[in-house]
Amino acid sequence: MTGTAVSRRETRRGRRGAQDWVATSPQISSRIPERQIPVYDLISNDGVELIHEASMRLLEEQGIEFRDPVALDTWRQAGAEVDLATSNVKIDRNLLLELVARAPSDYVHNARNPERSVRIGGRSMGFAPIYGSPYVRDLEGQRRYARLEDFENFVRLAYMVPSLNISGGTVCEPTDVPVAKRHLDMLYGHIRLSDKPFMGGVTHASRAEDCLEMCRILFGADFVQDNTVMTSLTNCNSPLVWDETMLSVIRVYAASKQACIISPFIMQGANTPITTAGAFSQLNAEALAGVAYAQLVRAGAPVIYGATLSTVSMKSGAPMYGTSETQVLTFLTGQMARRYKLPMRTGGMRHGAKALDVQAGFESLQTMLPAILAGGNFFLHSAGWMESGLSASFAKFMLDVEQLSILQRLTQGISLTPADFAADAIAEVGPGGHFLGCQHTIDRYQTAFFVPRTSDVNTYEQWHEEGAKDSAVLATELAARSLAEYAPPPLDEAKDEALRDFMRRRKSELPDGIE
Amino acid sequence: MTGTAVSRRETRRGRRGAQDWVATSPQISSRIPERQIPVYDLISNDGVELIHEASMRLLEEQGIEFRDPVALDTWRQAGAEVDLATSNVKIDRNLLLELVARAPSDYVHNARNPERSVRIGGRSMGFAPIYGSPYVRDLEGQRRYARLEDFENFVRLAYMVPSLNISGGTVCEPTDVPVAKRHLDMLYGHIRLSDKPFMGGVTHASRAEDCLEMCRILFGADFVQDNTVMTSLTNCNSPLVWDETMLSVIRVYAASKQACIISPFIMQGANTPITTAGAFSQLNAEALAGVAYAQLVRAGAPVIYGATLSTVSMKSGAPMYGTSETQVLTFLTGQMARRYKLPMRTGGMRHGAKALDVQAGFESLQTMLPAILAGGNFFLHSAGWMESGLSASFAKFMLDVEQLSILQRLTQGISLTPADFAADAIAEVGPGGHFLGCQHTIDRYQTAFFVPRTSDVNTYEQWHEEGAKDSAVLATELAARSLAEYAPPPLDEAKDEALRDFMRRRKSELPDGIE
Repeated sequence: MTGTAVSRRETRRGRRGAQDWVATSPQISSRIPERQIPVYDLISNDGVELIHEASMRLLEEQGIEFRDPVALDTWRQAGAEVDLATSNVKIDRNLLLELVARAPSDYVHNARNPERSVRIGGRSMGFAPIYGSPYVRDLEGQRRYARLEDFENFVRLAYMVPSLNISGGTVCEPTDVPVAKRHLDMLYGHIRLSDKPFMGGVTHASRAEDCLEMCRILFGADFVQDNTVMTSLTNCNSPLVWDETMLSVIRVYAASKQACIISPFIMQGANTPITTAGAFSQLNAEALAGVAYAQLVRAGAPVIYGATLSTVSMKSGAPMYGTSETQVLTFLTGQMARRYKLPMRTGGMRHGAKALDVQAGFESLQTMLPAILAGGNFFLHSAGWMESGLSASFAKFMLDVEQLSILQRLTQGISLTPADFAADAIAEVGPGGHFLGCQHTIDRYQTAFFVPRTSDVNTYEQWHEEGAKDSAVLATELAARSLAEYAPPPLDEAKDEALRDFMRRRKSELPDGIE
Repeated sequence: MTGTAVSRRETRRGRRGAQDWVATSPQISSRIPERQIPVYDLISNDGVELIHEASMRLLEEQGIEFRDPVALDTWRQAGAEVDLATSNVKIDRNLLLELVARAPSDYVHNARNPERSVRIGGRSMGFAPIYGSPYVRDLEGQRRYARLEDFENFVRLAYMVPSLNISGGTVCEPTDVPVAKRHLDMLYGHIRLSDKPFMGGVTHASRAEDCLEMCRILFGADFVQDNTVMTSLTNCNSPLVWDETMLSVIRVYAASKQACIISPFIMQGANTPITTAGAFSQLNAEALAGVAYAQLVRAGAPVIYGATLSTVSMKSGAPMYGTSETQVLTFLTGQMARRYKLPMRTGGMRHGAKALDVQAGFESLQTMLPAILAGGNFFLHSAGWMESGLSASFAKFMLDVEQLSILQRLTQGISLTPADFAADAIAEVGPGGHFLGCQHTIDRYQTAFFVPRTSDVNTYEQWHEEGAKDSAVLATELAARSLAEYAPPPLDEAKDEALRDFMRRRKSELPDGIE
């Protein structure tokens, strides 16, 4: 088992192996290593085929709506049974599966710093922060509308932590910037303040075009036409509606070989059947229809299969996270993604708590740990999620990224070399002894274990003397300390100037109001 | 997927499927259903055999100490290589495996109410609360030494919640009762206040005898001689020492076919090699040697294979929970338990936090969720664990039992009948609709989802208006409410009188001080 980037870089202060070294400040990641452990298959292959069959029949017999004339025309030409009056499209399984098979099973999401490019698919994993929150919980613990400054601070933090290898998209909504212009500021923030891969705007096709144009400036137009530099989030309006906004955005991105996450938006029991099999067969039909459409736009366009998952309380109507139903849906998503040879979107440190309490921790892990074992490839909402996604929290962000490091270490499994078995150390120490001073330990103690910087591992008495800080306090302090230490990665000045020129021009053309 | 006992019993108040019903107060469990989902194997069979080989060589070449003359004599007679001067016992793998094979792969832990008896092993699972805390966090949130009253309240709560099917042992240490007498009060508390299975005393052979005697009064002497009515916790003093106290307790219990959990006490890096393979090969050797010894006492005596797991911070020396290392050890414990056909001890909602914060939630789930997927059979410390086990918390207890219900539902997997696929409901609702009012939902909404009583699923505004209670507050209120509703199960008066007579006699014979 190898140490993470953080622990490898920790300063060696002594040779005795215990109390005398101190972790250095946060470090930018080297690559997140590929998953070395097996995936967890919840159901049998027969079960997988039952689900597949249910989804195929749904698409063949009932159909799905593509509420967009361009898409309907494309489906008609491709041979699907299209009803223009209702926007309904019935897709034969042979056509569907032939299209799905065109999608790559993995792809490289290129970063402007090639060292930070991330492969998505197979054993490779990308972790992106929370997406889309209108509110923040700031460093003073206040809940308020998010501002561009908050967005930029989240980008800075994501850049600095080793357990996030994707900068994200709309981490929070900068409500102090006009709706029609904020996609420009957000993309520029990802480009300027980080050199990790980022996600593009999806709220309008013209905004997706703007994001593409900025990427052409950054990467070169030729490169962008045939290489993925954005992975963007497109949602199905479940049940069974792909709308014009999403489809037009998929067209812009897929045509330029930019990746789309094709994500049904599942609130089990409300916009899906209450039963998990029913919910999944619908989800699967919706996702596959979207994947297939992207392939009609451009064969080989990278797509990610998955869904946004919650269960709806039949008591209050509220979304719930980390339920046994979302766990089952998560494992099924992995199994079906592998059946269709598609990268899998999943995960998220998601919860419904309004406070940084035990509920927040429980639900986040009930969501994220199954996603890891399910074989996820793209983990959205991996850090910062608060109160059903309405708020992005700086404290939760730091709590999550530290916990992610544990999960990422879990994916490395166990090393079983003769030295790992430590037979000589066991003989040297002998019954009743301790291993703290033996050479086998001294050789390894600096990288052996990961201690989250947001966790307290002192005694009760020490903890109490030091102010009885709970993990939210530790995390808030860590966020503030990290931001104080932030330094931006270098960016070519000519490109920076060109990007800013483009933004100035577009901003002058776009309206100022709330759309 | 079926509902839990709790949700099945919830009162039907309306037919429209959403806001108009209310969960009833806590209910005693029907049985916890058997695991229906596959276990997660982290390593290959080749890896399993590498670990097995390392442990066999350790026991054959280096040996393990049995610091107890009776045990040494028994090992000598069995054919092991015994060094009386050092207490070292070298055990040939043929002898060891022949003994291990005598242990049953599962057994029934009988409760005084046969409806509450629990099978341990295979797909069956027993969940017991925290064990051994000297402190409590009480209902006023104070941290103080535990009293008998606290112990009894935990027993009452464990009796009332459906997700615990074992009453536990030394849930917390009643420090207001003399050390030499408290085992009597604790066993009586389990017997009188609950009718779920319980654990016996292990701090001295004579105390184990007392527990046995009380069980003979309760169940009848003949029954107890051949049926398991206690499962008790015996720890190896890692590394590689079984001491006289534990061995003499194993002798008392195993001779009477009472079950022992044979548990190395693992603090990885301190009392084991720092490497996970080294730690596990030692753990495995220690556990198997203990299992084998129990079989020398009585062939077929029920034993549980497993360990207490923590990782030691190389920075502070403190134990850590929910690390990637303990997760790997947990999965390995499951795989090796299956290799040796033994029930598996694991689990626990264990953490190092001093506050009921996100750290507490994270670490508890990082520990418990892998234990569930690893195929655990006996889950100790399933509820109430606080600050590395030093405190038993009433609030954490309620938080944990609610979360356990989610994990227990996860073990039921997914139902894939035609009705579950809900094709008619999907057709009825159609694209863009919602499922809340359809017949398929109405038929199922009352049992469909589990909402933890300690979680808030309201909006931020509602939550704020209702006092901004975090989950610890909700849990404390739930604990108090539950205790107010407690009613004891019936107990035969003659047996009760006989039990109290025995306790009076024994208390008059035993010393009053602190041992």
